[in-house]
Amino acid sequence: MLFLYHSTTSVCAIKVRLTLDEKGLDYDGKLLNLREGEQHKPDYVKLNPNHVVPTLLHDGKVIIESTLIVEYLDETFANPPLMPADPYGRAVARLWMKKVDDYLHAACSTLTFAIVFPPVFGKKTKEQREAYYAAMPNAAYCERQRLSVEQGLGAPHVPAAARADDKYIGEMDAALVSSPYLAGQAYSLADAAATPYVFRLEMLGLDKLWIGKRPRVEDWCARIRQRPSFARAITAWFTDTDRARYAAIGEDPFPKIAAMVGGQ
Amino acid sequence: MLFLYHSTTSVCAIKVRLTLDEKGLDYDGKLLNLREGEQHKPDYVKLNPNHVVPTLLHDGKVIIESTLIVEYLDETFANPPLMPADPYGRAVARLWMKKVDDYLHAACSTLTFAIVFPPVFGKKTKEQREAYYAAMPNAAYCERQRLSVEQGLGAPHVPAAARADDKYIGEMDAALVSSPYLAGQAYSLADAAATPYVFRLEMLGLDKLWIGKRPRVEDWCARIRQRPSFARAITAWFTDTDRARYAAIGEDPFPKIAAMVGGQ
Repeated sequence: MLFLYHSTTSVCAIKVRLTLDEKGLDYDGKLLNLREGEQHKPDYVKLNPNHVVPTLLHDGKVIIESTLIVEYLDETFANPPLMPADPYGRAVARLWMKKVDDYLHAACSTLTFAIVFPPVFGKKTKEQREAYYAAMPNAAYCERQRLSVEQGLGAPHVPAAARADDKYIGEMDAALVSSPYLAGQAYSLADAAATPYVFRLEMLGLDKLWIGKRPRVEDWCARIRQRPSFARAITAWFTDTDRARYAAIGEDPFPKIAAMVGGQ
Repeated sequence: MLFLYHSTTSVCAIKVRLTLDEKGLDYDGKLLNLREGEQHKPDYVKLNPNHVVPTLLHDGKVIIESTLIVEYLDETFANPPLMPADPYGRAVARLWMKKVDDYLHAACSTLTFAIVFPPVFGKKTKEQREAYYAAMPNAAYCERQRLSVEQGLGAPHVPAAARADDKYIGEMDAALVSSPYLAGQAYSLADAAATPYVFRLEMLGLDKLWIGKRPRVEDWCARIRQRPSFARAITAWFTDTDRARYAAIGEDPFPKIAAMVGGQ
């Protein structure tokens, strides 16, 4: 039995849902409301000491970290394989996933909190905000999130985040010269890992980072969207509240982001 | 043919040398002098755009990132296997490696630069120091390193680094209750990944984080040291200059680190 703790819009949860769907695996699960702090509840923290989603349970075993969860699923359930058959191909796929973990996730989180969440947090009382931050176990991540929410795109770490997102998109465009998917001719965990981040940039109004300038990323996005997993693992889970949050983005953030990215 | 670009004391290079030795693989290689900036030379950056060691070449293929290199070696050369046979065991091993990548590496680097490198950098001219920093591609990492060198253990990010090192050692001690190695009964890539960091803490005079208080880590260290790979992949590579740098640590850093770690 597969059981997933996840949330509707979490990029890491989407990575796992895409993998489950692409592999044709049935699963049960529970959605946590991250804005209400359900990831900090003691029973959940016993499973996931990092206070984050997703967490996978499989026949009593607990697996955390989305990158490790998707490799576990691919190795446990053989077909269809979502990793290249040869070790070098797997190293290539893993490098895309590692870049997500090393910098793309933090960059994406920074831009999301700077663009979408200032009004959401503005509705909380000061006490509610402090309680929200106090529950977070990672002090550095908490401080970045607080600065993003309080200062929006003017927060000091936003330009580096914008450049990191742009770098990843640029590297995708270069890699897709030689193959339709990131790690070769077949869809792989690398594509599942990149998809929620690229789609998030689109939701933030930042798809101008590639539209009209990085045609291979445009084509990749079209290929990814045509796969049944896209709707089933991503958009089908969004609530009206999720959609309203992104629809409420006021001023177009792209000009400021473009200025930060510069001529790169 | 296996060819490794590495350096004498780099923790990530040691991880790969341990893996090569444990698997009984012959390799050729080139040592880069990181203090002289050889990792920034254009020909090397073409292979490793992150300007770091190690980089592995294998029959013309280039593999970067030590965590991916050791998985590549283990998957390419079957015997002896250095990963558990079952997918869950591999997820456990990968979680130890991921924690190294997510926080232990940065923590270890912070403490090394704060404890060992202030006198080394003090001998450089201001121009030499600025040129050294200017060559680094990762601005956030550069800023952390600069603060470590300039402010030593008083740098603002040092307490979090000390707590991160202590957390990893504590988690090792807890895991080693049930098995002699981190991912089970057999030595694995998880042990190869942790070894250079634990040994670095010892070189920094910080083995009091476990000696006399975390007996299972003490026992693990003894087991690791008894393996022939320890001398062949670690200490045999150190130069007199490397040894002198650590021998020159003046004031015992442990009391300050212990105060930062507190009752944890």
